Amino acid sequence: MTYCVAVKLKAGMVFLSDSRTNAGLDQISSFRKMMVYEKADDRFMCLLSAGNLSISQSVREMLQTEQLDDHEGGEPITIWNARSMFDAARVLGAAVRHVWQRDGESLQRAGVDFNVSLIFGGQIRGEGMRLFQVYSAGNFIEATAETPFFQIGESKYGKPVLDRVITPETPLDEAAKCALVSMDSTLKSNLSVGLPLDMALYEADTLRIDKIVCIEENNPYFRMVRSTWGRKLREAFDDIEHPTWDGSQTSVPLICDSERLGPLKKITNPRERLI
Amino acid sequence: MTYCVAVKLKAGMVFLSDSRTNAGLDQISSFRKMMVYEKADDRFMCLLSAGNLSISQSVREMLQTEQLDDHEGGEPITIWNARSMFDAARVLGAAVRHVWQRDGESLQRAGVDFNVSLIFGGQIRGEGMRLFQVYSAGNFIEATAETPFFQIGESKYGKPVLDRVITPETPLDEAAKCALVSMDSTLKSNLSVGLPLDMALYEADTLRIDKIVCIEENNPYFRMVRSTWGRKLREAFDDIEHPTWDGSQTSVPLICDSERLGPLKKITNPRERLI
Repeated sequence: MTYCVAVKLKAGMVFLSDSRTNAGLDQISSFRKMMVYEKADDRFMCLLSAGNLSISQSVREMLQTEQLDDHEGGEPITIWNARSMFDAARVLGAAVRHVWQRDGESLQRAGVDFNVSLIFGGQIRGEGMRLFQVYSAGNFIEATAETPFFQIGESKYGKPVLDRVITPETPLDEAAKCALVSMDSTLKSNLSVGLPLDMALYEADTLRIDKIVCIEENNPYFRMVRSTWGRKLREAFDDIEHPTWDGSQTSVPLICDSERLGPLKKITNPRERLI
Repeated sequence: MTYCVAVKLKAGMVFLSDSRTNAGLDQISSFRKMMVYEKADDRFMCLLSAGNLSISQSVREMLQTEQLDDHEGGEPITIWNARSMFDAARVLGAAVRHVWQRDGESLQRAGVDFNVSLIFGGQIRGEGMRLFQVYSAGNFIEATAETPFFQIGESKYGKPVLDRVITPETPLDEAAKCALVSMDSTLKSNLSVGLPLDMALYEADTLRIDKIVCIEENNPYFRMVRSTWGRKLREAFDDIEHPTWDGSQTSVPLICDSERLGPLKKITNPRERLI
């Protein structure tokens, strides 16, 4: 499995990926799931991938040479000359469909799903930052102010903290911290996600990327985040009053009736019926 | 979908279930997923169910009359005369198999999975408390000191806090609070889980259940837990230092090399190859 998350903020973008790949529990390896494309002062793009590794590697390879016809009669569109991230995402979708044309039928015969999901974001000179999630059919959706982040792979464990923290106004470093906390929750609860991590921080309108980091076990900042978050979470939990069951203001009233559900039936007799 | 969790502690057991059932997003209803069986001073049992509602309702109905042959020639074994929770879990497994015999083939023809999962725990006079998770094949596993809780349904959002808090030594009220926090994370991130909740707290060796509560939107304790947890989580998050990227003690060192992965390749040229 995999966990990747990308966030689009007013201040910039955060991309974070783990590196564990597995084919069953007894075949675990490390592969990079982040790829950065940059033509300084012109475009920055970052691709995160999850799913079948043979598919995602092929997609990344093909993305380099993939071309789309320009209906206005110009040069074929590639990720290097696309005039918008939307067009670049179309090129990526076309690369996914090319791999499907090549491998789809054989995979199906072997009973293997054509399973790949991608996050692709960045900025091209002349427009704002954009962030896309690309599906295995090559179709895609774009992040908006209401949904400023995408996750692929094992996304559930790490979603609550993103839901609570991330808005378009979140500062870049805070979003990076949030992505790392989200990754920590995922690492803690799911073995199929593992270190090292790759993280890229892009500052809006710079059209180049300087902050890319590979985070291993011994990374002091990530170690601090992991231990502090675990401790603080525990303290936050301890700070909440226990239920008291005694009728006082904050206690749980001892009723098992519900306006919507009616009384809970306690079965106390073998011949009583439930439904 | 559904979220149910049950915890077995030295001090007792906690059972918590939501009540949302849905067949697609446009058919949402409330059904109780908790059933309590009690013969005071002799046995207490609690059943939580997830999966296809027609299957789980049938299983609950059949559980009342299900009998297993006693290989020692005694009376047939039911949940009301079983001498161990293990035998009671076998009776439940048999009820699941009975429903499968009745409905399995027709469901398969209709392309519907035989999907049911159950948590079944309690105590029978003469032995300690026991907690089981029963699968759709009628087979089951038992909770141990290393894994003192089971979850069914939409389990991932609420797992991190359980992983961090629950041990067999956790006091009963603290475990109840933890189950509610776990439920809160699930409610926040997944629409298919909804109020009201049913919660039952069983104190070890009492062989009867007094603390059963139905929790609706207006329950003051759960409202307090939800708002306090959200706020405290945010404070805990804010308390963690941001990454500084400047080479100081807690910053993220700006390297994109990894001992295991090697350097991250930034693609800066259309003709460069990735792999």
